[in-house]
Amino acid sequence: MTVVKSTLSESARQVVGEALQGTLVDLLGLSLIGKQAHWNIVGPRFRSIHLQLDEVVDTARTYADTVAERAATLGVPPDGRPETVATTAAPQGPKEGWVQDTEVVGVLVEALETTIGLLRERITATAEPDPVTQDLLIGLTAELEKHRWMFQAEDWPRRA
Amino acid sequence: MTVVKSTLSESARQVVGEALQGTLVDLLGLSLIGKQAHWNIVGPRFRSIHLQLDEVVDTARTYADTVAERAATLGVPPDGRPETVATTAAPQGPKEGWVQDTEVVGVLVEALETTIGLLRERITATAEPDPVTQDLLIGLTAELEKHRWMFQAEDWPRRA
Amino acid sequence: MTVVKSTLSESARQVVGEALQGTLVDLLGLSLIGKQAHWNIVGPRFRSIHLQLDEVVDTARTYADTVAERAATLGVPPDGRPETVATTAAPQGPKEGWVQDTEVVGVLVEALETTIGLLRERITATAEPDPVTQDLLIGLTAELEKHRWMFQAEDWPRRA
Amino acid sequence: MTVVKSTLSESARQVVGEALQGTLVDLLGLSLIGKQAHWNIVGPRFRSIHLQLDEVVDTARTYADTVAERAATLGVPPDGRPETVATTAAPQGPKEGWVQDTEVVGVLVEALETTIGLLRERITATAEPDPVTQDLLIGLTAELEKHRWMFQAEDWPRRA
Amino acid sequence: MTVVKSTLSESARQVVGEALQGTLVDLLGLSLIGKQAHWNIVGPRFRSIHLQLDEVVDTARTYADTVAERAATLGVPPDGRPETVATTAAPQGPKEGWVQDTEVVGVLVEALETTIGLLRERITATAEPDPVTQDLLIGLTAELEKHRWMFQAEDWPRRA
Amino acid sequence: MTVVKSTLSESARQVVGEALQGTLVDLLGLSLIGKQAHWNIVGPRFRSIHLQLDEVVDTARTYADTVAERAATLGVPPDGRPETVATTAAPQGPKEGWVQDTEVVGVLVEALETTIGLLRERITATAEPDPVTQDLLIGLTAELEKHRWMFQAEDWPRRA
Amino acid sequence: MTVVKSTLSESARQVVGEALQGTLVDLLGLSLIGKQAHWNIVGPRFRSIHLQLDEVVDTARTYADTVAERAATLGVPPDGRPETVATTAAPQGPKEGWVQDTEVVGVLVEALETTIGLLRERITATAEPDPVTQDLLIGLTAELEKHRWMFQAEDWPRRA
Amino acid sequence: MTVVKSTLSESARQVVGEALQGTLVDLLGLSLIGKQAHWNIVGPRFRSIHLQLDEVVDTARTYADTVAERAATLGVPPDGRPETVATTAAPQGPKEGWVQDTEVVGVLVEALETTIGLLRERITATAEPDPVTQDLLIGLTAELEKHRWMFQAEDWPRRA
Amino acid sequence: MTVVKSTLSESARQVVGEALQGTLVDLLGLSLIGKQAHWNIVGPRFRSIHLQLDEVVDTARTYADTVAERAATLGVPPDGRPETVATTAAPQGPKEGWVQDTEVVGVLVEALETTIGLLRERITATAEPDPVTQDLLIGLTAELEKHRWMFQAEDWPRRA
Amino acid sequence: MTVVKSTLSESARQVVGEALQGTLVDLLGLSLIGKQAHWNIVGPRFRSIHLQLDEVVDTARTYADTVAERAATLGVPPDGRPETVATTAAPQGPKEGWVQDTEVVGVLVEALETTIGLLRERITATAEPDPVTQDLLIGLTAELEKHRWMFQAEDWPRRA
Amino acid sequence: MTVVKSTLSESARQVVGEALQGTLVDLLGLSLIGKQAHWNIVGPRFRSIHLQLDEVVDTARTYADTVAERAATLGVPPDGRPETVATTAAPQGPKEGWVQDTEVVGVLVEALETTIGLLRERITATAEPDPVTQDLLIGLTAELEKHRWMFQAEDWPRRA
Amino acid sequence: MTVVKSTLSESARQVVGEALQGTLVDLLGLSLIGKQAHWNIVGPRFRSIHLQLDEVVDTARTYADTVAERAATLGVPPDGRPETVATTAAPQGPKEGWVQDTEVVGVLVEALETTIGLLRERITATAEPDPVTQDLLIGLTAELEKHRWMFQAEDWPRRA
Repeated sequence: MTVVKSTLSESARQVVGEALQGTLVDLLGLSLIGKQAHWNIVGPRFRSIHLQLDEVVDTARTYADTVAERAATLGVPPDGRPETVATTAAPQGPKEGWVQDTEVVGVLVEALETTIGLLRERITATAEPDPVTQDLLIGLTAELEKHRWMFQAEDWPRRA
Repeated sequence: MTVVKSTLSESARQVVGEALQGTLVDLLGLSLIGKQAHWNIVGPRFRSIHLQLDEVVDTARTYADTVAERAATLGVPPDGRPETVATTAAPQGPKEGWVQDTEVVGVLVEALETTIGLLRERITATAEPDPVTQDLLIGLTAELEKHRWMFQAEDWPRRA
Repeated sequence: MTVVKSTLSESARQVVGEALQGTLVDLLGLSLIGKQAHWNIVGPRFRSIHLQLDEVVDTARTYADTVAERAATLGVPPDGRPETVATTAAPQGPKEGWVQDTEVVGVLVEALETTIGLLRERITATAEPDPVTQDLLIGLTAELEKHRWMFQAEDWPRRA
Repeated sequence: MTVVKSTLSESARQVVGEALQGTLVDLLGLSLIGKQAHWNIVGPRFRSIHLQLDEVVDTARTYADTVAERAATLGVPPDGRPETVATTAAPQGPKEGWVQDTEVVGVLVEALETTIGLLRERITATAEPDPVTQDLLIGLTAELEKHRWMFQAEDWPRRA
Repeated sequence: MTVVKSTLSESARQVVGEALQGTLVDLLGLSLIGKQAHWNIVGPRFRSIHLQLDEVVDTARTYADTVAERAATLGVPPDGRPETVATTAAPQGPKEGWVQDTEVVGVLVEALETTIGLLRERITATAEPDPVTQDLLIGLTAELEKHRWMFQAEDWPRRA
Repeated sequence: MTVVKSTLSESARQVVGEALQGTLVDLLGLSLIGKQAHWNIVGPRFRSIHLQLDEVVDTARTYADTVAERAATLGVPPDGRPETVATTAAPQGPKEGWVQDTEVVGVLVEALETTIGLLRERITATAEPDPVTQDLLIGLTAELEKHRWMFQAEDWPRRA
Repeated sequence: MTVVKSTLSESARQVVGEALQGTLVDLLGLSLIGKQAHWNIVGPRFRSIHLQLDEVVDTARTYADTVAERAATLGVPPDGRPETVATTAAPQGPKEGWVQDTEVVGVLVEALETTIGLLRERITATAEPDPVTQDLLIGLTAELEKHRWMFQAEDWPRRA
Repeated sequence: MTVVKSTLSESARQVVGEALQGTLVDLLGLSLIGKQAHWNIVGPRFRSIHLQLDEVVDTARTYADTVAERAATLGVPPDGRPETVATTAAPQGPKEGWVQDTEVVGVLVEALETTIGLLRERITATAEPDPVTQDLLIGLTAELEKHRWMFQAEDWPRRA
Repeated sequence: MTVVKSTLSESARQVVGEALQGTLVDLLGLSLIGKQAHWNIVGPRFRSIHLQLDEVVDTARTYADTVAERAATLGVPPDGRPETVATTAAPQGPKEGWVQDTEVVGVLVEALETTIGLLRERITATAEPDPVTQDLLIGLTAELEKHRWMFQAEDWPRRA
Repeated sequence: MTVVKSTLSESARQVVGEALQGTLVDLLGLSLIGKQAHWNIVGPRFRSIHLQLDEVVDTARTYADTVAERAATLGVPPDGRPETVATTAAPQGPKEGWVQDTEVVGVLVEALETTIGLLRERITATAEPDPVTQDLLIGLTAELEKHRWMFQAEDWPRRA
Repeated sequence: MTVVKSTLSESARQVVGEALQGTLVDLLGLSLIGKQAHWNIVGPRFRSIHLQLDEVVDTARTYADTVAERAATLGVPPDGRPETVATTAAPQGPKEGWVQDTEVVGVLVEALETTIGLLRERITATAEPDPVTQDLLIGLTAELEKHRWMFQAEDWPRRA
Repeated sequence: MTVVKSTLSESARQVVGEALQGTLVDLLGLSLIGKQAHWNIVGPRFRSIHLQLDEVVDTARTYADTVAERAATLGVPPDGRPETVATTAAPQGPKEGWVQDTEVVGVLVEALETTIGLLRERITATAEPDPVTQDLLIGLTAELEKHRWMFQAEDWPRRA
């Protein structure tokens, strides 16, 4: 007897479950990366970017919750344990120790780009099996792309 | 030239820095564990514990931020990267997949107990080198001990 | 001369109008069922489920309003009169009189399942004629499926 | 063994229970009627009456909850199922389809009048057996009579 | 010269003063009982009832204030001193030490029943001498009876 | 054809209408008296009584509105024009010009006493013809008697 | 010895005192007129104008307080007693009894016009003796002229 | 080197960029038209429509911001300069000077219809190149169609 | 098997448990004393002290809850039953009946002094066995000493 | 028959009307310029200035509304149509496309300077014909001059 | 090259700059004086005046900020350093140590009088060179004169 | 007879009194320094640091109040008069006139460092005589050290 029965067919459940699990660890990774930069940033733009990073963390945390509960809703137990995040999250954060503000901007642009790239694929993959999940991923992508624009806009003129 | 100069002597800085770094990863671990249980719990007490877990996560997240910024304040760059959390956090969470409600209660009691045990040692260790940090750890211990009480109270009569 | 002119073609208007009218009565039915259980539930889990039911009623009432106004917007006068709800709403509620808490959980899982099943069909049906209405139904389905998960999670281990 | 024991004598419980059950269905009927008019009204006074109707619905919903919980409190399981509302609610709503604003005003004056008339009888009936319930019905009557005044005031000069 | 002159005749003042003084100590007793249970409850339903008890305490404290000020208003100095509460309050609380959750429910049902029983008598006694005080007692009874219903509903199936 | 039809019989309407009209002008008078004292008070207790008077004005204004709309609701057009207030309101205010704080206290005790005395009669008069209006007057009396207590309590030891 | 010493010369105090006293009674009159119309209005535009009138009353009450306290501040005890308002306020209100909505609009346009006309004179009169008072009167005039515009705009096409 | 790099292919970027730029100017135009009518409307329905217009302006301003930032996010610098709005916005507003209320309703129905018609085309055009932008346009269309319904509902019976 | 296991050694638990239990009854006593004075105070300073007493009651109630839950957290079931408060609370309240304002000030200074004196001893006693509890008692002492200062400041020049 | 009658003489109305119409278009222009820069700014100071620009837009929008309604109040129908803004607004915005942050600062300093220069003239022009309008323009100038200071302060050391 | 360019002519800038600098130090002085009295006051009126003083401090701090930023806006760097306040602020505070409540009232009346006297001169001085600054000083004077009235009203009957 | 009796021994009172008085003037000095920089800062980072400085001022003002009231509580009248602040506060502020943003950062780092250095000594000094005061100083130090970190972090790479 299944614990939580899915409203999807088994094959649809598998595709959508993978998309959600992948998104979950990317968002948890992003929330840890954002905080790491929030604490270790130094440089004249410290205060502005310190605050901006918390807005990325807010998006990541809020959507991580929504995405994980969507997985559970479809009968897929989500996995957000520390070891799973450490080994499977795609976006890369800053190295250990203090980080210069200009470098933080670059790290965030890339971490967001990685996450968005994977999300775009998942939007395509879930369109047919579950438009409800797709809609959730579309909303998340809109927010992350906006964050990416802001970091990119303040990365100009760009470091060669 | 040091990036952020400490208001403590070098030896005090080291002791306090270790206490804070240890506390930081334990709290980040606890926040991931709490969410993992929040998403995967099943059983008749689902709703009540589901909500209770988010209060633990709130405490863990808020204090993780305070603890990490305290480390930075003392000239110790905090390390809260996914891999550091995965390899050094002390509290243990639930296994992968759905978890029965009674089991969640037990997991939380133990995870909190582990974290509190280490905090009690750090309160002693920081008393002399930095009473400001000690006060922060005392406040955190008060909150976590209260959470432990609540889970323990609803764990009665206890499973043999 | 038409009272409210539709922005859709006549055939699209008919398909979408039916989907919205069907959803409206199901939601009004669900809101009455949820309240009936909210008032008549007894048993040790009374308080937790009593509160949970009001969250279902909130979803049902809020979306009933949105769905009915969407119908009016498309030139289809919505019908939410008591007799229409009584005779055409799909989800089934509890019988008259006090209801045991465990039974309430089962009734809700089924009532939500019936409603969601019909919504999944309407999402498909409205995709082409009116993506605006489809988006509304997708948002509603996401909320109802989350409610269903919660009742199902607390319905474990399930009654044989 | 009774599920919820009444604080009233059996004969008092019966009289008061009938008064509350009658009021419950009238209020649920009124809330559906109010929404039906809210969605289907047309005419130059659309916006003002559209908003005013939601205030009637608010009163009806809030008091339906209070009335039903009062019945349960007295050991009388309330019945607010769709079929009960459809067959036993006294106030009459508008016909299906768009309704002209002036007609809505007339329908509301009459629906409120019917409900108030029955409430006045129930205030008398409950005075002796349960002054606590009577006080609740008095408070409700005050609100509904105020709504009736407002609709009547804007119904002047009256249609012959 | 009287300190605060009553707006009632001397005989009315005496009847009403006794009703208010009796209600005051019962409510103060109830607020201490509710807190005692709130702190000492154990068992799987700990969290839900722990929260529910605070709602009883809120009602008791708010009305104790209103009742005492009503007495003062009528020229009757209210007596809510610890020794008066200990010796004259009617409702009985739990014994010293931890209390099992199921037992707490029973204790509250009874404590509320005792308080309500006396209030019903005071409603009758004050009707003629002071309808203003009677109205206050009616409002209080409505709230306490609702609390009693909730505890009773979750006390089902009842312990033999 | 009557503008606003009453839900009361003609004789009941007359009794209740008079009670409400009398209360309306007393409250409007009280609100002007309260403000007059609020502006003209002098003496060491200025600030405390200045604030206290605005609470009396709040009660008077809020209930004046409720009372007038209750009259309209019953088909009795309320009369709160300046000349009607000046010639028919019962409570007496301070004389023109600055007023000593101790005197303000005495003026308020008396103005409230006058108003309450008339209200007590109206509570009796409306009991039978309209319990809904009676309930409103009871609520108002409770508030005004509380204000009177406070002024009287600070009027001790009393001026001979 | 003067109770409250003015910061103005005696002649300035007199001119400004008269301007403020005149404004005070006009505003108190306006607040009573506004409420009288708020309660007695009938006709299809009842609800919209009923709400609009309360905004006029808000302006009148708030500024009456400011104006009276400004007088006191300058050593001029303000006179807002019922009889003073009845005999000296300039704006004229509606006659006793129900008033048709269209007539209310006309009454308000005229009452506001009268008040504004006098205020314009007082702005000129206070410019030299006390620019602080003048600034207050300018702010009040801005608000009243805005109210007048709104009533005038809805009075079009105008009754011949 | 591009200032803000798009996450879309160049051809997709072009199609979506045009859709967003067109929507931006239409919304800025609509916000100016809405305010123009808000200020110049006269007639008995002035107040109700005056308030309703500000809700249209709110929608237009909020979405103009979202749409413009979405364009920037995709690497397309948005153009909302006065001259661009004046020359390229599609919806037509009222003529200069006072406008009768009935005419305002007609102007708004048409301005909204024009904007919605173009949005429906853009929803189709963006479906394939960028579902994230499409979702934004769908949400906007839902809001504008609701506004159109309300103006149309109060435009009945319609001017021949 | 212990119900709630302490994080302290048995000897530490005993010392800290006594300190917390003693503080609990003192605070509950203080909250009843504060209310008793709040209701029975008379004299020209009635209003100011009446309000001030509620701030003492707020402190007492809030900390009573924190202190009792800290005891439970350490495995010590707190005892706040009416009879325990009546027989073991240290601070003394006013006698029965009306109390003159100047006397209330003196009673409060002394009741606070008694409570603070015992707290100072408990701060010393808990320093070593449980710095977490000590920190709680320090925070409480800070608040009570501030209340004592305020009553003492308004007790000057002091009664011989 | 005039639609909205002015409280000013015809000549005063003309002078004041021109001042208000000129201010209106300048503010609408400023709000569009501010948004254009808000969306197109790039460079390291992106985030800080992006937020700052929205505060300018808030001032511009709020005062545009006040200024336009003041014109209507004086019988002058305001003209804020897109074409009027495009052709008559004085302040100049940035060119099309991305704008470097340092350049945005310069553009804003100048746009504000232009607007303030004209406002200073209008303050002089309206002093005599309408001090009420003058007061409004003074308040607006204070806000715009503060914005100009802030942009100028961050424009230092200035570009040669 | 000037840091912040003034919108005033050089001579106007000088006059207005002096008025603002003088006002700034007076307000900073007043805020320190108000707090000094707030902390050191003793006597039966302690609580009421303690609270009242914080309202004076609020006014002083809020306007100090506005006045200093107005100076900067006009190109005049404001000077609010401790030594400047100590040597140039006009109002005089209480002597060191505890101060009797009656004495505090007198000190405040005088400190406010001194500040207002200078402000009245500055209102005259700035009228021509900068009506924007004058308007700010008028608003400040209105608030300070109101504070002065309140202290003066409670200073009656006055100490010989 | 002492005005406010201390709960400390005379020698403890002296040590703690000095620590509090020293902290008070440092905080008042810091609040004036912070505002001076807030008003006079210029340079590209103007806006960000302008806002950051107000957060320092908030901390300084809030703790100045707490520290001064703690002194009064212990029977030590606090001295925060302008001349005392000017002559005894330890932290040094910026020179008169505009200050470049980079220089402001340096000034704040040093002013905070001076204040924190003295606080660290006072934490040691008060530990034994009054742990309640020590706890207050620990809380303050935590906040100021956090501010110092933020200014230091944005001061990197540091000026040689």
